[in-house]
Amino acid sequence: MPRYALKIEYNGKPFRGWQKQCDVPSIQQTIEEALLKLESTNEGIQGAGRTDAGVHAYAQVAHVDMVQDWTPFRLSEALNYHLREAPIAILQVAPVADDFHARFSALEREYTFHVLYRRAPSAHEAGLVWQVKHPLNVAAMREAANYLIGTHDFTTFRSTICQAKSPVKTLDALEIQEHAVDYGAKYRFTIRARSFLHNQVRSFVGTLERVGTGRWDPVDVKTVLEAKDRAACGPVSPPHGLYLASVTYPTDPFAE
Amino acid sequence: MPRYALKIEYNGKPFRGWQKQCDVPSIQQTIEEALLKLESTNEGIQGAGRTDAGVHAYAQVAHVDMVQDWTPFRLSEALNYHLREAPIAILQVAPVADDFHARFSALEREYTFHVLYRRAPSAHEAGLVWQVKHPLNVAAMREAANYLIGTHDFTTFRSTICQAKSPVKTLDALEIQEHAVDYGAKYRFTIRARSFLHNQVRSFVGTLERVGTGRWDPVDVKTVLEAKDRAACGPVSPPHGLYLASVTYPTDPFAE
Repeated sequence: MPRYALKIEYNGKPFRGWQKQCDVPSIQQTIEEALLKLESTNEGIQGAGRTDAGVHAYAQVAHVDMVQDWTPFRLSEALNYHLREAPIAILQVAPVADDFHARFSALEREYTFHVLYRRAPSAHEAGLVWQVKHPLNVAAMREAANYLIGTHDFTTFRSTICQAKSPVKTLDALEIQEHAVDYGAKYRFTIRARSFLHNQVRSFVGTLERVGTGRWDPVDVKTVLEAKDRAACGPVSPPHGLYLASVTYPTDPFAE
Repeated sequence: MPRYALKIEYNGKPFRGWQKQCDVPSIQQTIEEALLKLESTNEGIQGAGRTDAGVHAYAQVAHVDMVQDWTPFRLSEALNYHLREAPIAILQVAPVADDFHARFSALEREYTFHVLYRRAPSAHEAGLVWQVKHPLNVAAMREAANYLIGTHDFTTFRSTICQAKSPVKTLDALEIQEHAVDYGAKYRFTIRARSFLHNQVRSFVGTLERVGTGRWDPVDVKTVLEAKDRAACGPVSPPHGLYLASVTYPTDPFAE
């Protein structure tokens, strides 16, 4: 059976997350229902990252086995047709080898988190950014972020329901860009690692926001990291500023 | 009674346009209902531009007379509180002279129109851009746009229900920027005039899109302009790519 990689964009708002669950809408299930309209025996998809309820994606990756040989263009067009009522878009389809696995073959995931500082609510970006009412000190947040880079026991930044075997992960990058907007500023957090613990990115951003407002000192982030204690973590940020931005494989299946 | 200018951002999707009408939701009425919660005798607002159903704003301007003296900050905060369920945000409030009129004092309006070319639908910008399935030739559209600049009888680009006394208007600018995005391109049209006829901007963009795809030659736009015939116009573009971007007054009421 030919295997295909799918690059998928979605707005997470109407879903209870990526992963298929009983009786609640998920991105995975919505795409699988579209696949069943193309091939009635389809056995479903595996995604690279199991994004939480309300989390978005610019470029989630999943793989699927099909019975027929589909041209990539025809398969993406057919899926987008059946997905037309959902805020899910198949950006690209690529044929891959039988041993390609969207989750286990991945070398690195990149997440983006968008924060908007503005006093007035946002009419155009509500649900697409985390809006805060105070400006953030980027230099202080960058200083704090440096304590998180590298290999650490991230117990402090891990949800209590996380199922990963080990709390030790390697954070490759945590970069913060600021740019001015009318009446405020936007902050873009770019975060890369081979894999993440449950709620790790949102725990980072919620904690760094505390540093950005001045309620915490940068060095406090070092202290709470070393505490290896979930209770020491800052608040978990809301999900709706978070985007799965890209997934890296040994060979990019979507390179043309 | 102290008069205030309001700078207003909104997503037009849930509304039947700016203007108050019987039994349908409008931006004007939603804001007037919020004002009535602040002062029960409030007589309502006048906006600079009567945007159509589905059209958005980055910076609509309206004026309102209040009974009490409000600090601008407190008035904007109170309005945003009462508007919290609607995609409408008061960006700034400024005290203005009694003879300031949001509509009649305006010297120029600027509209922005966003077009996204991409094959796959957009999960994040649906309803915020007009999506087209073919790339557009910007050089050809700019050449065509040049025929529209200046003072002309714009009967061709005017809705048959337009109530303006004269079809003669002066178009100050019609600029088109392109930038690449993954799997496609974005085109931003920036259009400025003292005032516009009904559907004029959407008639321009729908006509220029025909030029951009190559179905029309640039010079065809000159021909249809000179025809002064509504039937000669290209299709009117959908409303959801259109934003009232700014309104210019002899003195900027919002300058600080």
